[in-house]
Amino acid sequence: MPRPIVLGVVGDSGAGKTTLTRGLIRVLGDEHVARLNADDYHRYDRRMRREMGITPLHPECNHLDILTQHLLHLRRGEPVLKPVYDHRDGTLRAPAYLRPARFLCVEGLLSFHTETLRSAHDVRVFLAPPEDLRRGWKVTRDCTRRQYTTDEVLRELDRREADAIAYIAPQRAYADLIVTFTASRTDDPSHLDADVLLRDSLEHPDLTPLLEVDHGGVALVRRGRDLLLRIPGDLTAAQVTGLEESVWDRMSFASHLRARRLGEFTVGTSLRRSNSLAIVQLIVLYHLVTARATVALGGDPVRSEWSAGVAPEPT
Amino acid sequence: MPRPIVLGVVGDSGAGKTTLTRGLIRVLGDEHVARLNADDYHRYDRRMRREMGITPLHPECNHLDILTQHLLHLRRGEPVLKPVYDHRDGTLRAPAYLRPARFLCVEGLLSFHTETLRSAHDVRVFLAPPEDLRRGWKVTRDCTRRQYTTDEVLRELDRREADAIAYIAPQRAYADLIVTFTASRTDDPSHLDADVLLRDSLEHPDLTPLLEVDHGGVALVRRGRDLLLRIPGDLTAAQVTGLEESVWDRMSFASHLRARRLGEFTVGTSLRRSNSLAIVQLIVLYHLVTARATVALGGDPVRSEWSAGVAPEPT
Repeated sequence: MPRPIVLGVVGDSGAGKTTLTRGLIRVLGDEHVARLNADDYHRYDRRMRREMGITPLHPECNHLDILTQHLLHLRRGEPVLKPVYDHRDGTLRAPAYLRPARFLCVEGLLSFHTETLRSAHDVRVFLAPPEDLRRGWKVTRDCTRRQYTTDEVLRELDRREADAIAYIAPQRAYADLIVTFTASRTDDPSHLDADVLLRDSLEHPDLTPLLEVDHGGVALVRRGRDLLLRIPGDLTAAQVTGLEESVWDRMSFASHLRARRLGEFTVGTSLRRSNSLAIVQLIVLYHLVTARATVALGGDPVRSEWSAGVAPEPT
Repeated sequence: MPRPIVLGVVGDSGAGKTTLTRGLIRVLGDEHVARLNADDYHRYDRRMRREMGITPLHPECNHLDILTQHLLHLRRGEPVLKPVYDHRDGTLRAPAYLRPARFLCVEGLLSFHTETLRSAHDVRVFLAPPEDLRRGWKVTRDCTRRQYTTDEVLRELDRREADAIAYIAPQRAYADLIVTFTASRTDDPSHLDADVLLRDSLEHPDLTPLLEVDHGGVALVRRGRDLLLRIPGDLTAAQVTGLEESVWDRMSFASHLRARRLGEFTVGTSLRRSNSLAIVQLIVLYHLVTARATVALGGDPVRSEWSAGVAPEPT
């Protein structure tokens, strides 16, 4: 069996990591994706962190060495006994046996923190929503599913700010895709704009032909060595279909995965859909299935590291 | 830093694994010994085992693949996040971070079950007390420290018998030292006899000169390619000293470890001492410090595997 393809999604707490990966996992097939949540590698539980005055964003608060070890085992196709952090009450639990699968999806706060960790990923996504949007998402999530009060979440956000700047933000420099959802035109979460910085560390699907015909508001802008894809949140169905078709055309070997389930997310308990989210997920999917096809043929996914470590310009 | 030296002590539940290793760890220094209890690698907790009708002696009831993985990491000098099984109530707990040390002491039911596991050990000890002795030890231990009733332990012993024969006993064939304490002359646990089969897979300290002078009841008997050391439980202090001196003479580079603390064990809450236990521990200690000295000089501990896999004759 060819080795698993590793997707890393990094971003601050509440940045939308699970929202991005959920749709990808549904398309790839739940049984074909092993999932690693780097939060499971917290060294201290919620109570201990409070007593010690340390935030989960600090590298010392996490078993990054063990995360690295487990990531390498899974990438080699070997199982691990992974630790379990229970977000509902902030405690550490008995570990769980995790088998490798075709894909490994790693969501984390710090999974691009070291070069060893970074190089264990085939596709690296960094989520960089504006702070006000992220704070709102985090309050909603933590109060409904993690037993925090609004006051507690806001205090926690303040407490974490310095570590977020020191440890989370710098990882942006090592991502292949930097995704920023913005509420510039509307607050409706189904119609957020998305900016995707396509860094030159990966070979992205060639989207330039798109720009020759009229695709409404989609724009592709050169940013130094990178390309910035701007996806407005108010695309028409026809515009979305055109864009999606052109990406699917470039991954015809994976057409059996085609489904209209990308772009789904939840607000409270109601299921919603976003076209810009669907397009972002589709671009990530392109990289995953392409890497998988390459590895299955005995090759190594193409990656150029010449600009790695150079922080991209802000979008 | 040279790689850790790995001691494996295998035997059925209650066979005396911890009693043997405790004195060794005290002499080597608690801070220099990483300890791995293979029971921590149980796949199911006590309640689940009961529901499934599976015993902890069955390989399927244990994450032997993960035990192997962790053992190899530690042997290479790398830390692991090891699972934790709480014997007091039979539940699985949050894992614990374990750093490698000079020595790694692995106590387990099944750690000689596969060739990969076996070959990860430098010194392999198998404990084979007579069943009546072991049953008595297990009842005392499980009722005082593991919240079982006598009836429960006896039922559990019956339930485990088939698996003990199928999976525990065959590992005897792969040990370097097979230790049998017997109550042939007295029931006093301080004066049990000990038979130690010194298998030819390791180079044992040459004890033949001992037999030329009068060392009381100590006997060294050839058993095929192996040697059987018979240590009576009623040696005089002078006889014990003579035997111990001759082993310490062969490990002069470790004389700073010399201490009179070998041979201690507990009966309930009272601390007792056994000369035969001390001598068994000293022979194991000899192999550990010799292997450590060899590895520290860039060598590999000498081991001959030609007879591995051939079950030794019963002592």
